[in-house]
Amino acid sequence: MSTDGSVTASDPSFLDHDPVIRAFVAERRQQLIDELSQWLRIPSISADPDHADDVARSADWLAQRLLRAGFPEVEIWSTPGLPAVYAEWRSDDPDAPTVVLYGHHDVQPVDPVELWESSAFEPIVRETAYGEELVGRGAIDDKGQVYFHLIGLAAHLAATGRTSPAVNLKVIVEGEEESGSVHFADLLRDNRERLRCDAVVVSDTGMYGRDTVSVCVGMRGMVEIRLDVRGPAGDLHSGSFGGAVPNPVTVLARLVARLHDADGHVTLPGYYDKVIPLTDRERGLLARLPFDETRWLADAQSGATYGEKGFTTLERIWARPTAEVNGLWGGYTGPGGKTIIPSEAHVKLSFRLVAGQDPGDVQPAFEAWLDLLRAEGTIPAGIEITPHYDRSGVRPCLTPLDDPMLQSVTRAMGRAFGTEVLYTREGGSGPEADLADILEVPVVFLGVGLPDDRIHAPNEKADIELLLRGAEAAAYLWSDLAETWVR
Amino acid sequence: MSTDGSVTASDPSFLDHDPVIRAFVAERRQQLIDELSQWLRIPSISADPDHADDVARSADWLAQRLLRAGFPEVEIWSTPGLPAVYAEWRSDDPDAPTVVLYGHHDVQPVDPVELWESSAFEPIVRETAYGEELVGRGAIDDKGQVYFHLIGLAAHLAATGRTSPAVNLKVIVEGEEESGSVHFADLLRDNRERLRCDAVVVSDTGMYGRDTVSVCVGMRGMVEIRLDVRGPAGDLHSGSFGGAVPNPVTVLARLVARLHDADGHVTLPGYYDKVIPLTDRERGLLARLPFDETRWLADAQSGATYGEKGFTTLERIWARPTAEVNGLWGGYTGPGGKTIIPSEAHVKLSFRLVAGQDPGDVQPAFEAWLDLLRAEGTIPAGIEITPHYDRSGVRPCLTPLDDPMLQSVTRAMGRAFGTEVLYTREGGSGPEADLADILEVPVVFLGVGLPDDRIHAPNEKADIELLLRGAEAAAYLWSDLAETWVR
Repeated sequence: MSTDGSVTASDPSFLDHDPVIRAFVAERRQQLIDELSQWLRIPSISADPDHADDVARSADWLAQRLLRAGFPEVEIWSTPGLPAVYAEWRSDDPDAPTVVLYGHHDVQPVDPVELWESSAFEPIVRETAYGEELVGRGAIDDKGQVYFHLIGLAAHLAATGRTSPAVNLKVIVEGEEESGSVHFADLLRDNRERLRCDAVVVSDTGMYGRDTVSVCVGMRGMVEIRLDVRGPAGDLHSGSFGGAVPNPVTVLARLVARLHDADGHVTLPGYYDKVIPLTDRERGLLARLPFDETRWLADAQSGATYGEKGFTTLERIWARPTAEVNGLWGGYTGPGGKTIIPSEAHVKLSFRLVAGQDPGDVQPAFEAWLDLLRAEGTIPAGIEITPHYDRSGVRPCLTPLDDPMLQSVTRAMGRAFGTEVLYTREGGSGPEADLADILEVPVVFLGVGLPDDRIHAPNEKADIELLLRGAEAAAYLWSDLAETWVR
Repeated sequence: MSTDGSVTASDPSFLDHDPVIRAFVAERRQQLIDELSQWLRIPSISADPDHADDVARSADWLAQRLLRAGFPEVEIWSTPGLPAVYAEWRSDDPDAPTVVLYGHHDVQPVDPVELWESSAFEPIVRETAYGEELVGRGAIDDKGQVYFHLIGLAAHLAATGRTSPAVNLKVIVEGEEESGSVHFADLLRDNRERLRCDAVVVSDTGMYGRDTVSVCVGMRGMVEIRLDVRGPAGDLHSGSFGGAVPNPVTVLARLVARLHDADGHVTLPGYYDKVIPLTDRERGLLARLPFDETRWLADAQSGATYGEKGFTTLERIWARPTAEVNGLWGGYTGPGGKTIIPSEAHVKLSFRLVAGQDPGDVQPAFEAWLDLLRAEGTIPAGIEITPHYDRSGVRPCLTPLDDPMLQSVTRAMGRAFGTEVLYTREGGSGPEADLADILEVPVVFLGVGLPDDRIHAPNEKADIELLLRGAEAAAYLWSDLAETWVR
């Protein structure tokens, strides 16, 4: 056990690798490079309608590969948009738990194309200080991380001598993740029975760093609100009326200014009531992640950090809810001057939510907040406020550190990397929340990406060594889950 | 004398009209309708390049008419834009004061054309509850108010038996007022010697109302400032960074929120230091103007009044400086959502200034204000603020109530209308400030427009009776000035 009592893999017994699995995976190094490169050559850019055929070809490639891997059932699931791939391989153990494995086979656009050192869809292997990396669009996000499961599953079967996996495996690899997963929730709902499972494993995230093996345990949720502020029925001459009527842009600015108090807390009444506070143990574990503020600020292109008093930067991003202005506009925004009192102003707000918070609670809290501002006079007579609520919202998700599923992933990662495993979260909100919500099961993350993998950017790459470790971790995971899962 | 001691025309002796002048003017009623209609038929829309020839024709028409009126010197002054008309008629009295008379011969566009009940450039005479009105673009703004001076001057000569006016008269009628007077200041500077004078009479404004004869005594000045607020070097993902970096839109909103205190005072340090406060007498006179808040709000299309504590609506618009947001923008403003922390935000501010204030003082006050906000933490580290100052600005102008020139105008209006004269100001800022500034003389306003004349709107009209009263007032003014002016 680690000194802080975490369920990390610091117990030396967890760190033993399986020599059969390691050897099996190591022997597939060239196969991984060759086959993954083949897949990466298909430019499955989901955001570009011109590449719709390529996304379909990518789905076909994966379907064929899953069939060759031994999956008895492989299907292309069409959507009103681009196709997903579904595959199912039931365990011969009737008591085996059922796992849905999630990934995506579409990729980001490649602009700015001139910044690529090699062709985005002609993957190359490059020597690095740490070994070799595969450079190409999709190498890590997410084809590489879907692909390592094929090696991992084969290793699992080879090492255990099984003819079917130790868990019932249901693989869903969508084709629209990089363009907003617009049809994914419906796809999940339509195939809810088919996808019935005990847990979801998502392989589309990364680790904290090359020297900090970690598992992601949660993502923030989100609610968006647009606010329309209306004053005079038309723009007014600021000479004839200036100083004597309420200016809707000024009122909107005052509202935005009141969104946070002096300590950076969001002022919506009851906003924090259901937030599951960070435990001392979680804060301790987060604090053990090596945080380089200078480097973080360089990534953020920001001159300074800023945020809620009493929390570190990582805590602010991962474990604290926010209220952010995404856009604000009102009045004259063209060249030169136009001395008007604008008739209206608008703001787009997004609220990132953390574990415990319910997206459905934001609307009543916001209404109460507006009432408060009306009562205190911040919204004066003559100003009309119309909030527009995003009815859906995205739920936050968090796997408790003592969750058995998470412990399995932690052990699998610990054995693959031979080192202690720490925990991270994601500040963003993804289709993972749909998985947890619609399938009503815990979601855990098994990913081996690195912060410097340049996802969504030119020269995206994957460390080949880490993809092989991912395969190894997957191989351990299925056996571990089958052994430790309690219904 | 009026009960509040104002220099109004309530002294009965001021209210006597001159029967010769009144009869002379009354006889020119049809001439006014015919000649003014002729001029109004020329669509001298300065904002529309397609009407440049019409603006030139309008200038020619006026030049010819001034020659016929007897002006020995009449010139068309070309500009890089549209032409002005200049005319000069020196008095045969060597001690006569010199007056520049200002007006403009260009007109506003006529859109929305479908709302005109008659053709905009085919003026018609319509019966009203008060007599007759002339309907057409430019009827009151400003051709009608330039034209009445021709009748007025003729009446002045006829009644006094003079062969030249009692004052040295210099008439300048510009052709670009409705498109921003962009070349007017240069025209004044280039012809400063030619325009040397003791006072300027502006005939381009109105009275408080049909039953409230009044003279405008001042206009507000203006300074514009644009503020750029920059945070992260690029837009950031609000999931990955939200809550941990300063958001420039939020900071800008806080700045705007701090522009006024809870009582509606502008918070720029020293902003009010040089403001010439309203005297009790001025406030008393303003309070005597019948103010109908319901009607004012209908004009403002606003649900309520709002502004600086301790001042009435008219005081706020006419006699108090302001800080107004004309436009604000930052981040994503398109359809749907885009969950970013914007990289930058911008605001356009305008400050209306009142008598005593110097446009040049606003920049240092604004800088001091920014320093204050930096010191109090409203501008956090990581946020860069770049103000852009409008170097020119417009000076406020105000003629003191005891100014002899204003007293002459007051008496002239009082005699023409046979009633007490009150005082108004304008909340806006016009080329009148250039006249006062560049020619360095007092500016007074002789205007007979009404708030319901629909200037700049469809069905613009002028009350024919009021144009005739304007002519009469002009006739009285030249004699009064010659008699009372003390160098």
